[in-house]
Amino acid sequence: MGPLPLGVNPQILRSPTLRADDELGRTRELPARPLARCYRDAFGEIQRDPNAELVVLERGGEVVGTLQLNFLRGIGLQGARRAQIEAVRIRSSLRGRKLGEYLIRWAIERAREKGCHVVQLTSNLARKDAHRFYERLGFRTTHTGMKLVLKTTPT
Amino acid sequence: MGPLPLGVNPQILRSPTLRADDELGRTRELPARPLARCYRDAFGEIQRDPNAELVVLERGGEVVGTLQLNFLRGIGLQGARRAQIEAVRIRSSLRGRKLGEYLIRWAIERAREKGCHVVQLTSNLARKDAHRFYERLGFRTTHTGMKLVLKTTPT
Repeated sequence: MGPLPLGVNPQILRSPTLRADDELGRTRELPARPLARCYRDAFGEIQRDPNAELVVLERGGEVVGTLQLNFLRGIGLQGARRAQIEAVRIRSSLRGRKLGEYLIRWAIERAREKGCHVVQLTSNLARKDAHRFYERLGFRTTHTGMKLVLKTTPT
Repeated sequence: MGPLPLGVNPQILRSPTLRADDELGRTRELPARPLARCYRDAFGEIQRDPNAELVVLERGGEVVGTLQLNFLRGIGLQGARRAQIEAVRIRSSLRGRKLGEYLIRWAIERAREKGCHVVQLTSNLARKDAHRFYERLGFRTTHTGMKLVLKTTPT
């Protein structure tokens, strides 16, 4: 397993393929090459945001896992900063090898470095294995995650 | 009810009192005046973040409700932008008057204006009334909300 690059890494642009490899993501992404402009635009915007980091896990020069971190400052909890983990994906052929654990533990340490009081994430109710996985890493299910879809077909 | 100011409004600095007025927030905030520096620092940082907005609901010159919006761009869902609602508070003596509904409907419209595909939030499992409230506004409970506390005593 190669070292985890800190912060934004252009390798992330391979991630739509990784997302299309996921059971829930398969129908929602555009894995065709050349890569659709929507991904390049999103990448540029995230790269410019000092409170957002795209992280990839590389192994032998290939991207095998990704996640996004957002650092959210609030007024509450005495002005605490939270780290939010989104878009966790591990290549399906490599699941069960603790790569996800390595990636999430790395994200938790990154949140600590940034002075965050809480690391938070939501996980689809269908992903029971993921819930147990996060509980083993110390997460507690204290909230419901609610969504209101405004557009079903992304531009 | 006064108009809802767009974006950041210094009135939000009164919100620690509002948060201390909340059943879960009572023990976690510092309502003393002069206002503790942690809140002023947090306010400044949020004010400088183009992807974060603090919103207050005013009535007769008083802050009666607050929420925070964060706009999160991702790679997934074809580079979609999400709006995340955090820290929703309505003054306890004014609950049941649809102020919360007004505030959340406003936030949904703001998310639409910003081109967001999804509005998301998490709600403490203890707040059953809140879950029904958000469901009435069109939110669906599709996720669990998981948290890992890194520091229990803010700064």
